[in-house]
Amino acid sequence: MTMLGPILAQIAEEMAALPESGVSADYILELARIDPDQFAIAVVTADGQTFTAGLSDTAFTIQSVSKVFALALSLGHVGDALWQRVGVEPSGQRFDSILQLEQERGRPRNPFINAGAIVVTDTLLDGCVPREALGGMLRFVREAAEDDSILIDPAVAKSEIATGARNFALAHYMKSHGNLVHAPELVLGTYFHQCAIEMNVVQLARAGRFLASLPDVPQLVSPERVRRINALMVTCGHYDGSGDFAFRVGLPGKSGVGGGILAIAPGRASIAVWSPGLNVYGNSLRGTVALERLAALTGWSVFG
Amino acid sequence: MTMLGPILAQIAEEMAALPESGVSADYILELARIDPDQFAIAVVTADGQTFTAGLSDTAFTIQSVSKVFALALSLGHVGDALWQRVGVEPSGQRFDSILQLEQERGRPRNPFINAGAIVVTDTLLDGCVPREALGGMLRFVREAAEDDSILIDPAVAKSEIATGARNFALAHYMKSHGNLVHAPELVLGTYFHQCAIEMNVVQLARAGRFLASLPDVPQLVSPERVRRINALMVTCGHYDGSGDFAFRVGLPGKSGVGGGILAIAPGRASIAVWSPGLNVYGNSLRGTVALERLAALTGWSVFG
Amino acid sequence: MTMLGPILAQIAEEMAALPESGVSADYILELARIDPDQFAIAVVTADGQTFTAGLSDTAFTIQSVSKVFALALSLGHVGDALWQRVGVEPSGQRFDSILQLEQERGRPRNPFINAGAIVVTDTLLDGCVPREALGGMLRFVREAAEDDSILIDPAVAKSEIATGARNFALAHYMKSHGNLVHAPELVLGTYFHQCAIEMNVVQLARAGRFLASLPDVPQLVSPERVRRINALMVTCGHYDGSGDFAFRVGLPGKSGVGGGILAIAPGRASIAVWSPGLNVYGNSLRGTVALERLAALTGWSVFG
Amino acid sequence: MTMLGPILAQIAEEMAALPESGVSADYILELARIDPDQFAIAVVTADGQTFTAGLSDTAFTIQSVSKVFALALSLGHVGDALWQRVGVEPSGQRFDSILQLEQERGRPRNPFINAGAIVVTDTLLDGCVPREALGGMLRFVREAAEDDSILIDPAVAKSEIATGARNFALAHYMKSHGNLVHAPELVLGTYFHQCAIEMNVVQLARAGRFLASLPDVPQLVSPERVRRINALMVTCGHYDGSGDFAFRVGLPGKSGVGGGILAIAPGRASIAVWSPGLNVYGNSLRGTVALERLAALTGWSVFG
Repeated sequence: MTMLGPILAQIAEEMAALPESGVSADYILELARIDPDQFAIAVVTADGQTFTAGLSDTAFTIQSVSKVFALALSLGHVGDALWQRVGVEPSGQRFDSILQLEQERGRPRNPFINAGAIVVTDTLLDGCVPREALGGMLRFVREAAEDDSILIDPAVAKSEIATGARNFALAHYMKSHGNLVHAPELVLGTYFHQCAIEMNVVQLARAGRFLASLPDVPQLVSPERVRRINALMVTCGHYDGSGDFAFRVGLPGKSGVGGGILAIAPGRASIAVWSPGLNVYGNSLRGTVALERLAALTGWSVFG
Repeated sequence: MTMLGPILAQIAEEMAALPESGVSADYILELARIDPDQFAIAVVTADGQTFTAGLSDTAFTIQSVSKVFALALSLGHVGDALWQRVGVEPSGQRFDSILQLEQERGRPRNPFINAGAIVVTDTLLDGCVPREALGGMLRFVREAAEDDSILIDPAVAKSEIATGARNFALAHYMKSHGNLVHAPELVLGTYFHQCAIEMNVVQLARAGRFLASLPDVPQLVSPERVRRINALMVTCGHYDGSGDFAFRVGLPGKSGVGGGILAIAPGRASIAVWSPGLNVYGNSLRGTVALERLAALTGWSVFG
Repeated sequence: MTMLGPILAQIAEEMAALPESGVSADYILELARIDPDQFAIAVVTADGQTFTAGLSDTAFTIQSVSKVFALALSLGHVGDALWQRVGVEPSGQRFDSILQLEQERGRPRNPFINAGAIVVTDTLLDGCVPREALGGMLRFVREAAEDDSILIDPAVAKSEIATGARNFALAHYMKSHGNLVHAPELVLGTYFHQCAIEMNVVQLARAGRFLASLPDVPQLVSPERVRRINALMVTCGHYDGSGDFAFRVGLPGKSGVGGGILAIAPGRASIAVWSPGLNVYGNSLRGTVALERLAALTGWSVFG
Repeated sequence: MTMLGPILAQIAEEMAALPESGVSADYILELARIDPDQFAIAVVTADGQTFTAGLSDTAFTIQSVSKVFALALSLGHVGDALWQRVGVEPSGQRFDSILQLEQERGRPRNPFINAGAIVVTDTLLDGCVPREALGGMLRFVREAAEDDSILIDPAVAKSEIATGARNFALAHYMKSHGNLVHAPELVLGTYFHQCAIEMNVVQLARAGRFLASLPDVPQLVSPERVRRINALMVTCGHYDGSGDFAFRVGLPGKSGVGGGILAIAPGRASIAVWSPGLNVYGNSLRGTVALERLAALTGWSVFG
């Protein structure tokens, strides 16, 4: 992919020229302040090269993109027993919906909506305290990215705890159905810190290489689990906008409310984009458009 | 894929040994009579070869698999204007649910649940009578399969009309929201006949080749539309069991209540399986397991 | 109640001075044309007197008020077996909602939402054709009012059939759950004609006397059934505005989209109001306010 | 009502002979231990007499019956502004449902489902600490019953806090919509203690006299508010069994999961029953039957 450099430069230019950039998440104070127009993209390819465009040095909190890493780690801990507590189906609802949780008696539809991710984090607390669970999470991400400089932004975590009433409702609700082992306060303390892991697009793209099954990178989970995580990213990675993302981009992907998206071209590349302005589904507006353009220009869609 | 013959033989053997085969659809009289244990599989590969195992000569009505062909045809007629009337998101509900239709004011979530497929068929009636619309549909399928012997089974269509109250409810409901142009009786008459198109697995696999973008076959829709139809098959092709299918099989697929499934390995193969016994989601039980095995044995999953 | 004449005159004056009158039902052509400002009220008291104010000679189609008479008649035909097919709980949804019908497998929540009323009409067709069922209905209403001049307006019925897609959806949906015995076309033909029974407020108030258990009037149903119908009118008589009506008026009541409301002061009076402008719940705006005033000025609330 | 003594004795005898008694609430440890067969009834009439039958000295926690007193008290504090935060419509859902809260953006349907009652208690904390709010609540109930011996059972309150995850979910969820002013822990601490107010049926019937507008008793709220509270008790007092209770009993009533029910015959009597075994709606099974019999034998139904 010798043309990848110019392609990314072209995409960055197109994004800067887009009339709309979406709106930064307003319910987390620390995020609301961020300029929604910013943009960065990084691609790590199978031959080990890294291509970038835009603000590729700017760090952002990965937010819900962390759900992918937490899932991979949890499956290593508890194995397929996880699926007793969380489903693998699209929810057809907003990321923080509690409605379906009542209809399905406290079992979240999938691990990428908030309720499901809270259960995943709950499993990471088995036999350890939050600080240790977070240490394990950070080690996993650093190993995936082969980069020990990745850190958590405690100010963002604190800000999210203060405004996290919806997530507290989800945790208590699952507790009432026996689907939360640890205390809601502990699980959410861990969860919000996990969401506050900070990376730039290069670090994030590197951290995603194991999902693209790129050669010569740490293979942290089995090939079968990689396929299944990618499948979940396609069907559930963008909440109630997952169908739209698959339709337009055609790659497994997971978005975060901080504006980051990790996308996977199996066997070919791990891609990270960042632009804080969000679309109606709560996913990065320019990030989604950029990935749509990248898939079109490279032919990397998994759908033909 | 020189090993494909033995692989299919092995799968057919495994399926015959499966302790469970599911239950034939019981709400359509003509289907309820069919032995649920029967099994057939056919694969057409990029080099033009066809491999089969099981009852590959036995014809069955393709039922909801027809929704894929109807969608392709409709997009040719009305283009992306279709998406004004139908969405592209998983529904998270049963195939014949009317609940979400109320919440979303008569706009079906996607073209592969019944409500969405009825809208698609409605577009095929623009400017023509049911007989002509069905003629066009049959021509499209025959051209895709390069096989003029494909027919409609009128007894099955008639049987479905008689027990089609749920679909009549969906049609009238959409009519009440202005999302049905033609009379419910005409649209459903067409729809039930389209579902009663009869093929064996070889014919169905051949009819699906254009979605696998195989070389030297009639390219009936643009590459971009192929990608999008495949994306919809992954996110919505198996109703509220779509996530499970993606998770286990990892291929775009569309099932029918007659026990048929069309699955696509982009660039590699078009696959048809048939086994009338259904699982809890209303998809072929053995057909799904067979595809899971095929994907595992060939490494054809689109997810890595 | 010697003061009732002046009280009604005062209420009529207040209604004429109300800044808002609501909007006439727009989905039925014949109703949309009617001036929403019009107002009439009639009260028949226990001593046999009739008091009126406003346009008490003007006839209007009683629409959903007919559901009360149909229920009384149906209970006479099939008895408490009716409650196997229809519930007695408030729906918490719009009058024409289909959503809850899916959740509750085709059994409507109560006989005063459209779905429930369609089941009630279905029972009236047992053993007879629509013309006979309607004849029975008309006889019942005429006997209740002791007035043989009450008729059906066929133009309104025809107009409703033409725009009745939502009701057709409800009927077919219940059919799919086995909760409709007769053909949807026949049931709805009967239903729409029943809704098109035409009365003025004096006729309607007289027709309601049996529910107020007034002395010296035809007692068409047992005292126990009268109490139960009144209970249903309180909890379910105004759709998802029933709580509001009970809260503000405090009398059993049933509204119709034509602007009529029948209200019952048990042992004291039968009351009919009419004003075609509707509030957000689809109930007569001025009719509701007038009843609120009447209850306040007479102390007739059943709640103390 | 000279016959009231024999009537109550007869009812108590009938209840003892009933083949079923329901099941004691199992999610609150302290309640689960209680024998479901026990029964008591007390009636205070307009002439000041008190009639009883059964275990009329046995105290029980009034649980959700306290919602009526809290509502009366809250309306005194914040007036009709309360209705900005809580509705007056039946919910059509279980008492602890969170589903509708999402659909209606954190505004509970009525003050008698748990979510609504939590908002009501939240208003009682304006300007004071939980201990003070509970003191005010207890003063109100004691004044209503003219009985200073009424107390709170702290062991039951503690037991409910420990198993109150569902209510914590409701509180946090409303907090996320800005419909909870005080901290969930404080509001629920107050709420669970209010539910643990302990009375026997005589005390409860006496506490309800102001709602029956009996002469010579403390009139704690205005006649208009009395009517409105009674209206809410009819439409919403028994959760998703409210329609059934109105249909069968025909009196305003509020049940508690401890097996108590307060019922009001406006102008005639205040009635309390207790029997811990619950029916499918979570209301006292024998208590409901006893009230049905009482209404039938006395003719006290408000519906004629």
